[in-house]
Amino acid sequence: MTIITIDQLKNHEGATSVRKRKNVSIKKLCNEKTLKKRVPILEWLPKYNLVFFLQDIIAGVTVALTAIPQGIAYAVIAGLPPEYGLYGSLADGFVYLIFGSSKDITVGPTAVLSSLVAKYTGYSKDFAVLSAFLSGIVILLMGIFHLGFLVNFISTPVINGFTTAAALQIAAAQLKAFFGLQGSSGLFFAESITNFVNNIKTAKLWDPILAILTVIMLCLLKRLGKGCSRTDGCSKQLRWFISMGRNAVVVIFGMFVAYILKITTNSEPLKLIRDIGSGLPTVGPPPFSSTSGNTTYSFTDMLEVFGPKSLVLPLVAILESVAIAKAFAVGGRVDATQEMIAVGLCNIVGSFFKSMPVTGSFTRTALNNASGVQTPAGSIWKSLIIVAALSFLTSTFYYIPNASLAGLIITAMYNMVDYEIFGRFWRNSKLELMVMLVTMSVSLFLGLEYGVVAGVAFECVILLYGASKPKVVVNTVKCDRSDVINLILGNSLSYCAAEHVRKAILKATEYAVPDSVLVIDGSNLQRMDSTVASNIMHLIKDFDKTSRKVVFLNFKQRLMKMCIDIYPKAENKFVYSTKPVDLVELLIKTS
Amino acid sequence: MTIITIDQLKNHEGATSVRKRKNVSIKKLCNEKTLKKRVPILEWLPKYNLVFFLQDIIAGVTVALTAIPQGIAYAVIAGLPPEYGLYGSLADGFVYLIFGSSKDITVGPTAVLSSLVAKYTGYSKDFAVLSAFLSGIVILLMGIFHLGFLVNFISTPVINGFTTAAALQIAAAQLKAFFGLQGSSGLFFAESITNFVNNIKTAKLWDPILAILTVIMLCLLKRLGKGCSRTDGCSKQLRWFISMGRNAVVVIFGMFVAYILKITTNSEPLKLIRDIGSGLPTVGPPPFSSTSGNTTYSFTDMLEVFGPKSLVLPLVAILESVAIAKAFAVGGRVDATQEMIAVGLCNIVGSFFKSMPVTGSFTRTALNNASGVQTPAGSIWKSLIIVAALSFLTSTFYYIPNASLAGLIITAMYNMVDYEIFGRFWRNSKLELMVMLVTMSVSLFLGLEYGVVAGVAFECVILLYGASKPKVVVNTVKCDRSDVINLILGNSLSYCAAEHVRKAILKATEYAVPDSVLVIDGSNLQRMDSTVASNIMHLIKDFDKTSRKVVFLNFKQRLMKMCIDIYPKAENKFVYSTKPVDLVELLIKTS
Repeated sequence: MTIITIDQLKNHEGATSVRKRKNVSIKKLCNEKTLKKRVPILEWLPKYNLVFFLQDIIAGVTVALTAIPQGIAYAVIAGLPPEYGLYGSLADGFVYLIFGSSKDITVGPTAVLSSLVAKYTGYSKDFAVLSAFLSGIVILLMGIFHLGFLVNFISTPVINGFTTAAALQIAAAQLKAFFGLQGSSGLFFAESITNFVNNIKTAKLWDPILAILTVIMLCLLKRLGKGCSRTDGCSKQLRWFISMGRNAVVVIFGMFVAYILKITTNSEPLKLIRDIGSGLPTVGPPPFSSTSGNTTYSFTDMLEVFGPKSLVLPLVAILESVAIAKAFAVGGRVDATQEMIAVGLCNIVGSFFKSMPVTGSFTRTALNNASGVQTPAGSIWKSLIIVAALSFLTSTFYYIPNASLAGLIITAMYNMVDYEIFGRFWRNSKLELMVMLVTMSVSLFLGLEYGVVAGVAFECVILLYGASKPKVVVNTVKCDRSDVINLILGNSLSYCAAEHVRKAILKATEYAVPDSVLVIDGSNLQRMDSTVASNIMHLIKDFDKTSRKVVFLNFKQRLMKMCIDIYPKAENKFVYSTKPVDLVELLIKTS
Repeated sequence: MTIITIDQLKNHEGATSVRKRKNVSIKKLCNEKTLKKRVPILEWLPKYNLVFFLQDIIAGVTVALTAIPQGIAYAVIAGLPPEYGLYGSLADGFVYLIFGSSKDITVGPTAVLSSLVAKYTGYSKDFAVLSAFLSGIVILLMGIFHLGFLVNFISTPVINGFTTAAALQIAAAQLKAFFGLQGSSGLFFAESITNFVNNIKTAKLWDPILAILTVIMLCLLKRLGKGCSRTDGCSKQLRWFISMGRNAVVVIFGMFVAYILKITTNSEPLKLIRDIGSGLPTVGPPPFSSTSGNTTYSFTDMLEVFGPKSLVLPLVAILESVAIAKAFAVGGRVDATQEMIAVGLCNIVGSFFKSMPVTGSFTRTALNNASGVQTPAGSIWKSLIIVAALSFLTSTFYYIPNASLAGLIITAMYNMVDYEIFGRFWRNSKLELMVMLVTMSVSLFLGLEYGVVAGVAFECVILLYGASKPKVVVNTVKCDRSDVINLILGNSLSYCAAEHVRKAILKATEYAVPDSVLVIDGSNLQRMDSTVASNIMHLIKDFDKTSRKVVFLNFKQRLMKMCIDIYPKAENKFVYSTKPVDLVELLIKTS
């Protein structure tokens, strides 16, 4: 039985054979490999075949059936004209086709991003397009500079608190459309709820009926598809397809109801989205200035409106896309850098087509996967169908009732919240539950961006507190000649632990007999900063006055140097022993 | 040889005997002990004697000789009338006498606090008095709620960066008085330097001469006292006393020069501090509103002017007083809580006597100690002499030249900086040097308060980064039947380490033969949060699909529960072994 480290194993298995090749061919290989990694289409396109082609078309069409109603709904959340939600899914199909590393991921507008954009669209819709461009640049740069690790500093409780708050806020904003109320809704949760309560008496008859029907239909259709898959027999396949396209089904149903009501009553009892910009967007650079009413915003004005807190937008985009990439990665390996480059480019290119900010969408990605997509080429079919919809169907979209969209959005938000996690945190980790509730409350009452910041700050405080109380093990060994107090330090001591270590040493020596020897064991100590070192050495200085014997055992050279630099007289106190701590021998040596 | 823990030792040695006494007397004992701890005068006053009395008087007088010129100088730094610096040392003598726990500590205005107050005195001098009151309340509350540990989160590099920046800023502000320039000086370093350069041509003749003489005299007098002490023979004792009173000596010399110049030239070639408020301050509650020119500030206006960033003031007061208490504590034991209560009360009571914010002063405390003070009663003599000075000497103070004070302050600031620490950080810890330089730069160019915040934030980032890369040891044990990959986790895993752990597991299994067993050893693991747990369990879910065998070894019950809650199927993977990890046995068990 031999023990070898993983690095030895790696060298052993494959690296030696590669090394023997010529340097030139290694370089060539690397370049080709890097190119294929950064432009994944080069990898999969040569292997493309007819079966892939057919399966990608089927998946693309299925996804488009969801992307269209969702896109329109998310444009409504963002406070934009409905067609902007469709513009958001145009360029992605082509950009992700080339740069996307995952066959399943579908890029497009998402509910959370739309809700973050909403507060800027009040100024002018140009802000949404510019935010896509700027977010794209931030995401791309973070990808290029490998800064994706930054999202690791956002913990599960913070993400869940944020998501739950976003869901509540988005759902609350839809209450107005759900009940067909008059007045405005509001950007914030409290505002939406207040407006809802104030205007509840203006509720219409048909809007809430249709909205409730939408919710019920969505639940039933979801259940209809249970246990079915696209590879089952004919009837099950149909059930699966209807279930997967349920978003389209309920919106088409809503349009049908609206149309019938219009014909029969000769009026429009339901609130409809009405005129929707027809055709493809005009292509051009994103708007670097904007005019709204009498106000003109220069580029710097627009940047000022965004402010530093809008950096949460690209951060959330990365968070969503990387999380989805992880969920759908085979074997758990994710190239976060490539994912960020792809999403960054989708936003930048998209902004030339009037796109709102986009990122990986969980529901559509899952649908894409379930539809048996084989390559990122699936997304191109989605985009082509949306082009067709924009060209030919906008007059039909006139009849989409706002109540249907509200029902759709509220159902989606209900499904976005992870209810189990509340119980799981309650059972296992009350502190994390608190982090989540703080994030959630701040998100709801001060704004989503501040929620993330508050959550991360809270986590920092917890981490600092933990680092300030490192484990210090104290054993007293009773010997014939005198006692040995053995104080074992952990592997990392940062400045906030300085006081704790100082107190631990004082406590350990407080009750000891005067001639006992204090052994400070640094065998495990890897990191120590100068605050800790200076605290310990000042104590040793005091001990020297009272002639208490102190020995530093097995401190790393680097750490010893740091200590001696503070108190040079301590040099002869540092001893090394390769044998397992032989305390008695040490004791004899020092007394 | 028996090994016993420190807690056992403690119980063994004294606790048992105490426990046998009646409960009532324990309670009584505790109350009396607590009272003496919180009102330390009850402890030392009964033991007071004539020798103590005489030594306390001598120390008190010596300290007063420094406290008067320093007090006036610090009032100048704070932009207040000179008498405010003396008001600041009045109440402290009496309050610290009762509540102070250290015989050496002398409370009064300090350079750093004065510099922090300076930006508010521009509004009106009432702001300085109110800031003393409010700071006192914050310090007292932090003492009562045992929040003193918060200063542990400010590291040595941050403190040094802050102190160096404060010294530079205070010294730069004195350049105007040093050279007798016209125009204003400025609150910030850059402002002071710019004004200095712009006005350098207005430099007077006598001011810089006197200022330079002051600096030279201070250096020579400091050297004069070297090797002497108050217990030496007569001539050495005199040298020691003159050296210790050097601040008073140079100011008296300056006054003498100013007086001579006035008589001989019949004009005032030196800039003098001139009229100084005579007598004791009127006693009354601190100003909760203030009028300056045509502007009236209500209490809320004043609070708004202070803003949250002025919380740095009480924090710095605590930092200074606790650091000094530590430096002068016998055996290193410091009752930080009592120190904070005493300093808090000094500020609150002081604000009724028009005091500016006060805290422990390093120079005067060292002087007090060197002068052989025996009890906190020394401070009362200091206060009495300041009362006398305010009553009888203010007309003499008219002649104190600003240049003398500038020389005094600049010399003090030169001595405040720890020059060695730059080299020590450079040699041992470049990262800490960076923290210090960042704190220093932000302090100098954006303001002292922001420097502390920036430094602490930087330390947080370093700590987070460290926590995100915990050590994970991987050993591969080659056995006959199959390999065992042994992955040993450290003792604390926080959410930011989740990705690192995930990657470590993936890397460890990547090159392993497919039927090898992965053993995740949690024997050392004390803390793990749900982000880490869910990351690991999702990976295990993936492994289950590929039928890779995984075993969790010696996870604490609590952590196991957390994992199973996320992925219940993993329950049978958790095994325990009290023997030293017997990998082969485990392997046989699981294959």
